[in-house]
Amino acid sequence: MSHSLPETLIHSLQQQFQQRFSQGESQCLQHGRDESVHTPQPPDAVVMAESTAEVATVVRLCAQHGIPVIPYGVGSSVEGHVLAPQGGISLDLSGMNEVLAIHAEDGDAVVQAGVTRKQLNDALKGTGLFFPIDPGADATLGGMAATRASGTNAVRYGTMKDNVLATTTVLADGRVMKTGGRSRKSSAGYDLTRLLVGSEGTLGVMTELTVKLYPIPEAMSAAVCTFPSIEAAVQTVIQTIQLGIPVARIELLDALSLKAINLFSKTTLAEAPTLFFEFHGSPAGVEEQAQTVQAIAGELGGTDFEWATRPEDRSRLWQARHDAYFACLQLKPGCRSFPTDVCVPISRLAECIADTQADIAQVSIPIALFGHVGDGNFHLVVLVDTDNPKEMKEAAWISQRVVERAIAMEGTCTGEHGIGLGKRQYLPLEHGDVAVEVMRTIKQALDPHNRLNPGKVLPPG
Amino acid sequence: MSHSLPETLIHSLQQQFQQRFSQGESQCLQHGRDESVHTPQPPDAVVMAESTAEVATVVRLCAQHGIPVIPYGVGSSVEGHVLAPQGGISLDLSGMNEVLAIHAEDGDAVVQAGVTRKQLNDALKGTGLFFPIDPGADATLGGMAATRASGTNAVRYGTMKDNVLATTTVLADGRVMKTGGRSRKSSAGYDLTRLLVGSEGTLGVMTELTVKLYPIPEAMSAAVCTFPSIEAAVQTVIQTIQLGIPVARIELLDALSLKAINLFSKTTLAEAPTLFFEFHGSPAGVEEQAQTVQAIAGELGGTDFEWATRPEDRSRLWQARHDAYFACLQLKPGCRSFPTDVCVPISRLAECIADTQADIAQVSIPIALFGHVGDGNFHLVVLVDTDNPKEMKEAAWISQRVVERAIAMEGTCTGEHGIGLGKRQYLPLEHGDVAVEVMRTIKQALDPHNRLNPGKVLPPG
Repeated sequence: MSHSLPETLIHSLQQQFQQRFSQGESQCLQHGRDESVHTPQPPDAVVMAESTAEVATVVRLCAQHGIPVIPYGVGSSVEGHVLAPQGGISLDLSGMNEVLAIHAEDGDAVVQAGVTRKQLNDALKGTGLFFPIDPGADATLGGMAATRASGTNAVRYGTMKDNVLATTTVLADGRVMKTGGRSRKSSAGYDLTRLLVGSEGTLGVMTELTVKLYPIPEAMSAAVCTFPSIEAAVQTVIQTIQLGIPVARIELLDALSLKAINLFSKTTLAEAPTLFFEFHGSPAGVEEQAQTVQAIAGELGGTDFEWATRPEDRSRLWQARHDAYFACLQLKPGCRSFPTDVCVPISRLAECIADTQADIAQVSIPIALFGHVGDGNFHLVVLVDTDNPKEMKEAAWISQRVVERAIAMEGTCTGEHGIGLGKRQYLPLEHGDVAVEVMRTIKQALDPHNRLNPGKVLPPG
Repeated sequence: MSHSLPETLIHSLQQQFQQRFSQGESQCLQHGRDESVHTPQPPDAVVMAESTAEVATVVRLCAQHGIPVIPYGVGSSVEGHVLAPQGGISLDLSGMNEVLAIHAEDGDAVVQAGVTRKQLNDALKGTGLFFPIDPGADATLGGMAATRASGTNAVRYGTMKDNVLATTTVLADGRVMKTGGRSRKSSAGYDLTRLLVGSEGTLGVMTELTVKLYPIPEAMSAAVCTFPSIEAAVQTVIQTIQLGIPVARIELLDALSLKAINLFSKTTLAEAPTLFFEFHGSPAGVEEQAQTVQAIAGELGGTDFEWATRPEDRSRLWQARHDAYFACLQLKPGCRSFPTDVCVPISRLAECIADTQADIAQVSIPIALFGHVGDGNFHLVVLVDTDNPKEMKEAAWISQRVVERAIAMEGTCTGEHGIGLGKRQYLPLEHGDVAVEVMRTIKQALDPHNRLNPGKVLPPG
């Protein structure tokens, strides 16, 4: 597909942004691909914005010329969110990376949308506070808000929906809107902040966020434990959650993931289903949580419990979990990962994973399983050669099986990745036709000419 | 203002609802007033609905005839939410009081919108779970969701925004929509659930809710402590929150509130600024929290610490807090309370309360102050004779002062009551014109003929 931008638009953007406007092929290609198997679809040009006013200018100019605008952070999303199926301008916010205010006494920070989670945590050093949400990649907070991201410690600290208090957002016609506020609760009007969180750039471009911060726990401990079966590991998770133990992280990795990690990191971990835990709290609280969980795991056959409380030991234990995704990719060099991201009510998790394992047994491609099981959320790393139609077909088959199973169990097709391009067809199955119609009505009301990240979230029709 | 319903509509509703349709004056008056100073505005008729299908029928019939529909629970709201300024049908959902499912293993329950919080907690007996949100009144869960209610333990368990997972909602044209789901997180599409929570019946009528449940804590303890000044009490709160101590409740009552309680309940509590605490957790955790808070309070001059861990002793301690609102009303028999409900970032709470006390000193009417200070949220019980213009003027003056001050401190005009009729004029001041325009755009898109609770939330214009 080839597009072209109107000359007057190119001229205006060149005048305004100089070197920060580019139609270069490599720039466009880089901005038109993500971390997944989605076929790259480059935009026609890239603009590096540095302020809310600049974002508003770009959006307004594009609106005048009928050109799509696709917000871009660091490109770590996995459902084609940053692709440009209709061409247009990729609006790169990574230069908007200023931490505007840290209100330590209120436990919040105001950041530009291009600030990454690690940048924010670096800026918080010395305050005794941290920002917990950790989707793995060092994503921008704007991107994380746009996809309603979460990650390993959502089980304790919630997702971006729970941790964005306020936004500054550029609307489809270039108006600048403030939503939410800094008080811890409010009943004042429609919750526009949470309508924007998870809207994937289709209702507005978030340029600033106020996010919640948390006191760094007085004590933290980490643990790793090996199980005779995935079933036993999952039952440990279920009992832990049902007892209301406030674990900070509880992650499952299957045997193949551990094998990949051993190969990647030259470790000698048991290649068996494994749970990684982290506990946050007071010294007594952490000790109590850890003992309770160890007892549960022990009854279910968990062995080789390894505990760590010193920061360097905790990091070493968790390194394996952090390496899992890239280690799995190395199992099959040159391959890409077909994203899956289902989440089910915790009571269905064991059955959902067991049935998924039966599916995995039926295909030829290697598939690792791991995830944020405390929330009922898990991923498959489905390793495919994107040029091999048989592999792509198998990957699509298993992805569909897993999604349809999760939805049948009252779960979701995506726990934290978002819909993007890749999960649009499942939106009606999950939410029903009426809810999808209402989403379309809202999109139509706020972006009547469909210029903001067109083609994403809502299924064609 | 007098209205009349079309004969064909009356006929259809009579046919369908028989005794559950009423145009009786007392029924209409009862449904056209709330707990506050708002002048009653009765609807033209009341329908007692018993199912989602019946709600859809009423909404569809009213849409056909261009008649407003005002959802009604138990009428415990305080900002005129249930009043019928344009007449129409009060749709009473209190008969929809079935607990449809308790998923103990997943920590959620599915309820009809007319189930009250106490009913739900009664139904949960024996499960080891409870529903924490407690706005004081035994409100319906539908009403609580509609106003984004919270109450004493929001500081630990969040507000209705955090605790409604899914809804069944009847739209303005009678279509029935499902939103959300039972998995603990999802990134699948726009967050319609949270758009509905807090929309006060203006975007749809919620008929069923899935709400989060929590394990009853292994240990709970309560405490009461008296302070030499409100300032000292508030500083205790601020330090407690800033240390990240997970208090379950932390409530402030001023000296006048204590005086009212002593008169009302024949108690002999110290008539001084008082904090009420509740701690939830493991035995060790609760003990640790309590000791830390006692130390903070002690340093700030807190005295007469009274602790309780047995349920009956905890109830006795907390009874005073529960009685506060009605006790204050008795200070001036026949009066009503002019509602205020501001919430500010915790760092501004001491200043906000001190400045408010200076305002209180300037008026002749009695005003008690108490609230959910762990969230930065407090109320004034402004006692007025609604027939006395001077008192009403003083009440309006102080309400405006308090709201404008809170907003200037980056807070909100309403922490938990909602906008209703009474706080509409402050919505643009709090959120800015663009956000209010966007709220109006959404209302127009979802309810183009303005039939759902017209006149509420959005300011006239």
